[in-house]
Amino acid sequence: MSSEVKESITIHKGLDSIRVNESSICLIDGERSRLYYRGYSIADLTDNASYEEVAYLLIIGQLPTQLQLDELKNTLFSEYTLSPITMTLLKSYPSTSHPMDVLRTTISSLALEDGGLTQDKSVNLQRAIRILAKAPVIIAAFERIRQGKEPLTPKKELGHAANFLYMIHGEIPSNYDSRIMDIALSLHAEHEMNASTFSGIVTASTLSDMYSIITAGIATLRGSLHGGANEEALKMIMEIGTPENAVTFVEERLKQKKRIMGFGHRIYKTYDPRYTILKAIAEKLGGVKGKASLYDTAVRVEREALGRLSDSKIFPNVDFYSGLVFHMLGLRTDLFTPIFASSRIAGWAAHVLEYLEDNRLIRPKAVYTGKVDLQYTPIEQRT
Amino acid sequence: MSSEVKESITIHKGLDSIRVNESSICLIDGERSRLYYRGYSIADLTDNASYEEVAYLLIIGQLPTQLQLDELKNTLFSEYTLSPITMTLLKSYPSTSHPMDVLRTTISSLALEDGGLTQDKSVNLQRAIRILAKAPVIIAAFERIRQGKEPLTPKKELGHAANFLYMIHGEIPSNYDSRIMDIALSLHAEHEMNASTFSGIVTASTLSDMYSIITAGIATLRGSLHGGANEEALKMIMEIGTPENAVTFVEERLKQKKRIMGFGHRIYKTYDPRYTILKAIAEKLGGVKGKASLYDTAVRVEREALGRLSDSKIFPNVDFYSGLVFHMLGLRTDLFTPIFASSRIAGWAAHVLEYLEDNRLIRPKAVYTGKVDLQYTPIEQRT
Repeated sequence: MSSEVKESITIHKGLDSIRVNESSICLIDGERSRLYYRGYSIADLTDNASYEEVAYLLIIGQLPTQLQLDELKNTLFSEYTLSPITMTLLKSYPSTSHPMDVLRTTISSLALEDGGLTQDKSVNLQRAIRILAKAPVIIAAFERIRQGKEPLTPKKELGHAANFLYMIHGEIPSNYDSRIMDIALSLHAEHEMNASTFSGIVTASTLSDMYSIITAGIATLRGSLHGGANEEALKMIMEIGTPENAVTFVEERLKQKKRIMGFGHRIYKTYDPRYTILKAIAEKLGGVKGKASLYDTAVRVEREALGRLSDSKIFPNVDFYSGLVFHMLGLRTDLFTPIFASSRIAGWAAHVLEYLEDNRLIRPKAVYTGKVDLQYTPIEQRT
Repeated sequence: MSSEVKESITIHKGLDSIRVNESSICLIDGERSRLYYRGYSIADLTDNASYEEVAYLLIIGQLPTQLQLDELKNTLFSEYTLSPITMTLLKSYPSTSHPMDVLRTTISSLALEDGGLTQDKSVNLQRAIRILAKAPVIIAAFERIRQGKEPLTPKKELGHAANFLYMIHGEIPSNYDSRIMDIALSLHAEHEMNASTFSGIVTASTLSDMYSIITAGIATLRGSLHGGANEEALKMIMEIGTPENAVTFVEERLKQKKRIMGFGHRIYKTYDPRYTILKAIAEKLGGVKGKASLYDTAVRVEREALGRLSDSKIFPNVDFYSGLVFHMLGLRTDLFTPIFASSRIAGWAAHVLEYLEDNRLIRPKAVYTGKVDLQYTPIEQRT
């Protein structure tokens, strides 16, 4: 055996303490409950900016001028169309398919018409914007198709978030709903070196193409420990049903050493700042949409869980109220993760383009614990 | 800023020296030119075992008895069928699509009919075997469809490798060709914590599903620094054309500080043992198929490159002759990486199932180098 294997070796399972690169995209200050995109606090951005501005900021590195923003909006609008092949695929899928599987497969399929490896930065950027534009259109188209309705095409006068709601519901959304969707998308757009972003970087590091990269990001976001968490949190709150059931539920759950969905984060050791923003939205939106009791149940679950978990530095995270907000906007539960993905494409693209500026193939090692030099035995001698 | 950010920090770009887990699947002894699958040397396995045996060994952990092997073969055979939806998709793709994009998209699409998250080990295993079976059928079906031919269904009497060749060429392959394909698949089936395997593990670590996991593996293998390398190596050898051109080519290439495709490996500091096996095959196969001059060119390129690179511990790797072997088996160049992927599914599945036995979400960090506490400026004030 090689000398390397004999050395005393640290195993970094989960890569918890490992820094994989330098990045100027996102800072999470998990002690002080702060999140910055390119140096701007998330509170400042969600108070002021549209998702398009946030996406530009993340991918290009600075806030756009009016001209740059108009250009981006025009590009997005021209990319909102789906090709006849994409439409054929969407109509061929079973109506029972999970929209996250649909999104992953359809984003992957975009390469069939625009494939090929490239190291051209401008092509990578162009493809990233294309995928960013088409993702919500794909999600909305499948949502309509599975209900037996024709997909809708976006309207030029609406922004990215408003078009998303329009294409799903078939009605022009109120400014209030559109603004909430805008904020929700911005809040999900980026979060430093999370699993799906890292997954995109691993894929990019072999000099794979942007379609493969974003497909891998979606594949990784699909898991219940990542993108699936807000769906789980909402299901949990709906199952609890009323504020009165919260105590028993939380006690039982913790007694069984099970997670409270939407609680806990590897980086935040206090409140997730995205949680704070979404909670305020959920409260007001619950009133507007006649869903105040659902909000009240969530708040009660939160209070009961916090009382038992905050000593362990386990706090509510972005997922605890984001599912509630999406639900109050009339979105079906299985769309939450695809919507999250569609927004996070901005963050994935930003990180990948940054990493490719100084690429290094990602190739860790394992510590071998198996046997060596076994003798092959003919099959008839095996038992 | 948090205290964590202020610490002196090591950046592990590429994760070169980082061990991400313990594993009993594969040992690469890069100093002694050895490669073991589950303790058996690759030379021993390719001398004796079929790809089905190797896949069983990798995924289950030991060589199968005759009964177990028969069971696996029966399961594979029953999974070789493609659903009507899969066939519709394959026939909807542009004939100009890259087969690697086709494979990634179609494997992803299998989830549309069998989706959902699960933590059930037996379901994960079943899905892995399903994907392993269907991958070559998908590749061969698309190869036929893009030539305007009907896809073929596999024959019960043929093994996995022979069926692959049969479904592509439409003729029962010779035992000799089948055996070479078998060996080539076995040689590509596994290689420790390479980028695509690690990519699958990252995806699995969020508790995503097996379709997402293998899709991510394919996405990562797509890159020219990973699966695409044998294609590049063959193209290079064909461009050089004759042994006489080798010296000038190698000299020019190295003077321009460019890679010789199929040379160098992060782990091997001597000959890649898979290279040795494939070179012997390429020599004999070149004679059989009337492609001896291609082999001679490759050998000359190898000699010239080795003479200039071996002091730097840069040696030929698996990719240098594998493209040549696939080409001599009559396979089109753009099928090489999909074939590599179809074989590596065994390794991906083995690693992912092992990792999930003691899962930990993979979530590294970045070192933040950007700005903090910027003030949002209204768009009309930006320049």
